[in-house]
Amino acid sequence: MEIMEKWQIREIVLKALEEDLPFGDRTTELLIPPGLKGSAYFLAKSELVICGERVAEAVFHEIDPEIKITWHFSEGTLVPSQTRIGIAEGKIQGLLKGERVALNFLQHLSGIATKVRKMSEILNNSTILLDTRKTLPGLKILQKYAVKIGGGQNHRFSLSDGILIKDNHIKALGGLEKIIEKLETQSHTLKVEIEIKTLDELKFILEKGTKVDALLLDNFSEEDLKIAVSLIRKQRPNLLIEVSGGITEENLKKYAGLGVNFVSSGALTHSVKAVDISFKIEKVWE
Amino acid sequence: MEIMEKWQIREIVLKALEEDLPFGDRTTELLIPPGLKGSAYFLAKSELVICGERVAEAVFHEIDPEIKITWHFSEGTLVPSQTRIGIAEGKIQGLLKGERVALNFLQHLSGIATKVRKMSEILNNSTILLDTRKTLPGLKILQKYAVKIGGGQNHRFSLSDGILIKDNHIKALGGLEKIIEKLETQSHTLKVEIEIKTLDELKFILEKGTKVDALLLDNFSEEDLKIAVSLIRKQRPNLLIEVSGGITEENLKKYAGLGVNFVSSGALTHSVKAVDISFKIEKVWE
Amino acid sequence: MEIMEKWQIREIVLKALEEDLPFGDRTTELLIPPGLKGSAYFLAKSELVICGERVAEAVFHEIDPEIKITWHFSEGTLVPSQTRIGIAEGKIQGLLKGERVALNFLQHLSGIATKVRKMSEILNNSTILLDTRKTLPGLKILQKYAVKIGGGQNHRFSLSDGILIKDNHIKALGGLEKIIEKLETQSHTLKVEIEIKTLDELKFILEKGTKVDALLLDNFSEEDLKIAVSLIRKQRPNLLIEVSGGITEENLKKYAGLGVNFVSSGALTHSVKAVDISFKIEKVWE
Amino acid sequence: MEIMEKWQIREIVLKALEEDLPFGDRTTELLIPPGLKGSAYFLAKSELVICGERVAEAVFHEIDPEIKITWHFSEGTLVPSQTRIGIAEGKIQGLLKGERVALNFLQHLSGIATKVRKMSEILNNSTILLDTRKTLPGLKILQKYAVKIGGGQNHRFSLSDGILIKDNHIKALGGLEKIIEKLETQSHTLKVEIEIKTLDELKFILEKGTKVDALLLDNFSEEDLKIAVSLIRKQRPNLLIEVSGGITEENLKKYAGLGVNFVSSGALTHSVKAVDISFKIEKVWE
Amino acid sequence: MEIMEKWQIREIVLKALEEDLPFGDRTTELLIPPGLKGSAYFLAKSELVICGERVAEAVFHEIDPEIKITWHFSEGTLVPSQTRIGIAEGKIQGLLKGERVALNFLQHLSGIATKVRKMSEILNNSTILLDTRKTLPGLKILQKYAVKIGGGQNHRFSLSDGILIKDNHIKALGGLEKIIEKLETQSHTLKVEIEIKTLDELKFILEKGTKVDALLLDNFSEEDLKIAVSLIRKQRPNLLIEVSGGITEENLKKYAGLGVNFVSSGALTHSVKAVDISFKIEKVWE
Amino acid sequence: MEIMEKWQIREIVLKALEEDLPFGDRTTELLIPPGLKGSAYFLAKSELVICGERVAEAVFHEIDPEIKITWHFSEGTLVPSQTRIGIAEGKIQGLLKGERVALNFLQHLSGIATKVRKMSEILNNSTILLDTRKTLPGLKILQKYAVKIGGGQNHRFSLSDGILIKDNHIKALGGLEKIIEKLETQSHTLKVEIEIKTLDELKFILEKGTKVDALLLDNFSEEDLKIAVSLIRKQRPNLLIEVSGGITEENLKKYAGLGVNFVSSGALTHSVKAVDISFKIEKVWE
Repeated sequence: MEIMEKWQIREIVLKALEEDLPFGDRTTELLIPPGLKGSAYFLAKSELVICGERVAEAVFHEIDPEIKITWHFSEGTLVPSQTRIGIAEGKIQGLLKGERVALNFLQHLSGIATKVRKMSEILNNSTILLDTRKTLPGLKILQKYAVKIGGGQNHRFSLSDGILIKDNHIKALGGLEKIIEKLETQSHTLKVEIEIKTLDELKFILEKGTKVDALLLDNFSEEDLKIAVSLIRKQRPNLLIEVSGGITEENLKKYAGLGVNFVSSGALTHSVKAVDISFKIEKVWE
Repeated sequence: MEIMEKWQIREIVLKALEEDLPFGDRTTELLIPPGLKGSAYFLAKSELVICGERVAEAVFHEIDPEIKITWHFSEGTLVPSQTRIGIAEGKIQGLLKGERVALNFLQHLSGIATKVRKMSEILNNSTILLDTRKTLPGLKILQKYAVKIGGGQNHRFSLSDGILIKDNHIKALGGLEKIIEKLETQSHTLKVEIEIKTLDELKFILEKGTKVDALLLDNFSEEDLKIAVSLIRKQRPNLLIEVSGGITEENLKKYAGLGVNFVSSGALTHSVKAVDISFKIEKVWE
Repeated sequence: MEIMEKWQIREIVLKALEEDLPFGDRTTELLIPPGLKGSAYFLAKSELVICGERVAEAVFHEIDPEIKITWHFSEGTLVPSQTRIGIAEGKIQGLLKGERVALNFLQHLSGIATKVRKMSEILNNSTILLDTRKTLPGLKILQKYAVKIGGGQNHRFSLSDGILIKDNHIKALGGLEKIIEKLETQSHTLKVEIEIKTLDELKFILEKGTKVDALLLDNFSEEDLKIAVSLIRKQRPNLLIEVSGGITEENLKKYAGLGVNFVSSGALTHSVKAVDISFKIEKVWE
Repeated sequence: MEIMEKWQIREIVLKALEEDLPFGDRTTELLIPPGLKGSAYFLAKSELVICGERVAEAVFHEIDPEIKITWHFSEGTLVPSQTRIGIAEGKIQGLLKGERVALNFLQHLSGIATKVRKMSEILNNSTILLDTRKTLPGLKILQKYAVKIGGGQNHRFSLSDGILIKDNHIKALGGLEKIIEKLETQSHTLKVEIEIKTLDELKFILEKGTKVDALLLDNFSEEDLKIAVSLIRKQRPNLLIEVSGGITEENLKKYAGLGVNFVSSGALTHSVKAVDISFKIEKVWE
Repeated sequence: MEIMEKWQIREIVLKALEEDLPFGDRTTELLIPPGLKGSAYFLAKSELVICGERVAEAVFHEIDPEIKITWHFSEGTLVPSQTRIGIAEGKIQGLLKGERVALNFLQHLSGIATKVRKMSEILNNSTILLDTRKTLPGLKILQKYAVKIGGGQNHRFSLSDGILIKDNHIKALGGLEKIIEKLETQSHTLKVEIEIKTLDELKFILEKGTKVDALLLDNFSEEDLKIAVSLIRKQRPNLLIEVSGGITEENLKKYAGLGVNFVSSGALTHSVKAVDISFKIEKVWE
Repeated sequence: MEIMEKWQIREIVLKALEEDLPFGDRTTELLIPPGLKGSAYFLAKSELVICGERVAEAVFHEIDPEIKITWHFSEGTLVPSQTRIGIAEGKIQGLLKGERVALNFLQHLSGIATKVRKMSEILNNSTILLDTRKTLPGLKILQKYAVKIGGGQNHRFSLSDGILIKDNHIKALGGLEKIIEKLETQSHTLKVEIEIKTLDELKFILEKGTKVDALLLDNFSEEDLKIAVSLIRKQRPNLLIEVSGGITEENLKKYAGLGVNFVSSGALTHSVKAVDISFKIEKVWE
């Protein structure tokens, strides 16, 4: 599957289970007979894009490999509120032990995918929605995966797989000129993106930055943004343009028709609103 | 320090760094001379309760033990927007390598603490704000710590340190009667809390549930809640009362004067809004 | 299964195997042809309560998933000396590589369960036998599990899942009065137990300790114990009473009829006598 | 230090702490002010050989590097009952968090060392006391270390560092003859020891087993043992002789003068009786 | 430091030590008094480029933090045969325990750096020497680091940080045409490199592959290579050109003047010849 | 299987995959449809001894358990150049993700086994080829396994499973005399080997070293070697003789007829030349 390999899912799932079951489920072990079996369904309690099926499955599988999960929709499907999205069958002790951890994953990842889906639709596919490195520690791979499932694309994953020159680099070297000199050593596999904050910086790059492949226009006013796009398309039509800074679902529309390639938003991963999903025991047998 | 032990911070910090620096910082290593030193300050860009200082320190310490961090306010302080909250000094390569990961921790944890502080104030200390087990996988200890720093209290951490009987337990056993029978085996160290959803369930527990120490009134209407509290205080004045279900900063006020002991909210940890904190290189030397 | 989750068994089993097979079994690899198959039986060499079947299985499974283990009795069964308790079939190299590690687990856990069974019978079920936190490092979950299999109950597992105020807390704060003040902040999920060593302390708690749920009477003489129980049952009939200090199989009988709820013994886990179990190759084929 | 390297101590200490402090010390955090400091002493409550000082130190160091431990006796010293063996100073929260785990290590390891010391004295240094592979899972290095501190020697640590041919190998191959043939491939670094149970087997080995370096005489009667030793010393004076099977402190004396090189006992590590050590807060300051 | 972060060095060093010291150094513990101190020097026994100083230091530091290492040359220095390159001082037990592991790292990494230095000089800096993903499992970061120290550059580190389309991709999709179609989705941060094996493929790419940033000419004859370079420089002067396939120190010279940007060689990391470095105890004191 | 246990293979394979797939295969995910299936064959591109089949299988199994690998020859077979040695079938995404890592293992291990096979044949089985502790960090078990598959034997694995007294021990103690005294404490399971560099040292050992089981003659001239062997065989015919120092495939022949037991070579593992193996997609289906 994309991005998330099997062992990476297992690692985060085991971490989450160890957090939640360091020495057993005191309530369930007190109340539920070990042999009791049953089924429970996952219920979407709002409209949402399902994300994290394989992760939720892995949660129950680590507790009890005989629990069987069936999903009624494939990963990435948008379902209306009150939809039953899947069913789990097996020993009830295992169902109850895994419930909360499985939902914690599903609600977070579906929360990301749902938000990205909505925002991507506003952008109308002319402009691509990107995530950032503002991810929650330990959850980066899962969050980046959810962005893709939602229809966005991933910016670089880490400091190791992209060159993005930001204000602190420029400040540390003492100005854009110094940066430009250092770019002569051309990278073999990585493009060079540079973050700029003013039209003057833009003009400097357009003139001198022949090694620059992409521009990140950060916190430009709408007006300046239009000027910037027009300048870039005239002088360096192949330069990739990314826009960032205060992007929200509400103000996103204005970026849709501007002709920029990418809009990026840290909030996609740093300020996730979980969607509401329930897990309801339905049938019980022995 | 409370809850988070030194090795637990180290473990999650190393995980976060491994995610973000699997094979070096390509930009920084391209641009910044290894010997270049400088200072950078942390800037609160909104009013916030600082949380995560020790975690942020650990991030830089793992990269370069010679980086020195000074905080201008102690953990848990509420600071206004535009406050410089701390300064980092040392090799700039290290400052830039740690910047994003340190901020990811600080913004998330301060986001939790800030929200909890606001909500606790609305509750006016008469009622205590609790978290839940709806935490983000791998971040449970940090999130629970941030709730305490914000002024809330922690509900149980895991399935292993509390008995909370929920709807799925009741459904699996076939009704509250069956639950009550099983409670005769009294736990030695753990109180028993039971989640109920109706006044009828409440009356049953008040009559039969002598082993119950706390009630979780879930999704009660405001009217029913008042009746419930009145019944409980008359018949079992020492029963602890927790209220949950759709608690938000907006509707919280109505729970403040009701005489319940606790209000709990999953959103405190499952839907965290990061606060905005910047890290700005200020001085540079060799 | 209770307490011990699948991944926890795997973790300790892998640790044990890594200790015992860091680079192969030099004797077996020298002598035994890789294709040689056979069976071997587990033989109880004294009367014992079987404990650790799933752990022993996991040992062989990690070495060779094709080894098949059949147990003739379920976990927790008391069997007489010279009973064959199970059989293992498969490649002999694997049987011999796993033998010692599997027995090390079985002998230790069955040793605990056997001891607990005997002591619980002496207590005649009127009083419950508890373990303590005096467990062997790295083996806590397994040891606590064996106590339950033997018929005892678990005291708290860790410092995180119970409040037990001991002499060092009292000393550090400067007396019981200071402790009592601090208990006003009532815990939501955890009962409060306090260790006392004299009748005077008991009287103080009975008068002032309204937030105390359980008492640990440590090292009381038999006479004082009787006075203590009588006082408690008169004034706070629901207070849970635990007795500890120098409890042995020999002196246990005197605690059986006293009306205390619990007797706890650190020796159950800190001074375990392994029971004797053999593993005997019986048939050999190719 | 012998056997136990720094990282191995750290690993088992972290495991033990994680077991006991998964999410904080609820009692201590409730009661003890974070800044409160004090000292506590370790008190031997029976005559014992101190073992595990570095391990106990590591426990406190992982919790709070500023806690200072001073030992009044060096590792391996025999001290009388009621001896103060060391002192810990620092924040009381840390002292109380580490107390139980540190004592669990000290009591177990000192228990082993004390027992080995007593038994070695009975053997009067003419015969060496050996441990076995019957160690507790996860604690092998520590237990073997304690045996050395007590004055014993270590048999092989694992299946990887010694050749010991046991009854199951002989059974699997169909007799001693088959074993002897296979020994022609001489090991480069490892001696060959073979376990025998009868005088007939002994005679066979003395005649044919030219590649055998050591004999393990298992469960021989006292009479047979004398015959065996006499035969061996006559025919193969340099063969190392180890005796095992039901060795106890009580019956040990009879092996002391027999002229065997080694006596080995699984009980040294599989059935350890912890010695009693207390940890007492003494002074408190802020 | 470049590429290798502190925790990555620690992880591989601990792995190496655990391999080599699972339960102590039997020889050293038998012979060397624990308190004996001394010094030992590292001696280059052939001309070499020093690489791995920090790793060797970490080896000794994990064994005994009091061992002090002093290097006489900085990382990356070319030294003649018989040069003393550093000195270690401290307890001799620690020096001997760490010797072999430290040398294993130094000899391997210096072996890589030395080879890269020689080959880079042959290329005369007009063409850059690249490594590949043909690295030894578990040693990738260290090997890539050594390539840089030697004066080469790193090709992508992993499948996650570069797009390199190889013969198997082309075969799987059924031809270069299919590949070209798929490249319309332009990556944001990564360049696109494609491996080609014939002049016909080259012509196809030059015509259609507008999204291609770099070409890997694999196993071209010298003659075809010249034609290829000439075609590329005429039609797409900014295309990066990498040459691979059977590159050796012997035949390297012919690639130096061709005008290609990069020459890559898997043998740099998959077939490393260790350089010879000794570690000699020189002085001994108590 | 010999030496390498299942969990040890899994550990190094996961490490290698994590290195190469930290966040997905960017090329394959861009180009290859997830459902596309196919087969690929492993092709030996030179004469080689196959080694590492189980490791390569584990690589693909961790990525996608449904990939099926079939080997046409058993581990350890010598195959001519251009032999198809195995086939992999399943989803092409998985085949491409695992290709390089699987080949990195196969090429390295087969490289060792092939070299050992050739050198063992030169020695004509009269003398045994041994490896050393000069192994690559993290790969020791795999390398030692490959030596055995190639027909060599393993010297000790670590400092923990053999006693080998080297020049630095002798230097630290101040001469061979001091060493000999310390050997009186005879090891129970380990032979004693001592490295000597001159005929004088040899004579000393032959006279005084009654506890020495094996001699390592290091860097002796051919002439001295003959004298040494003759002396040893006369005075201590059972002493094992190992020769080391500058052994190469070229000069190996002269050691074959000398009557020494072992020849050891660090280069077998520290300077491995990978053999060339390709992995070629052959069929594709959906």
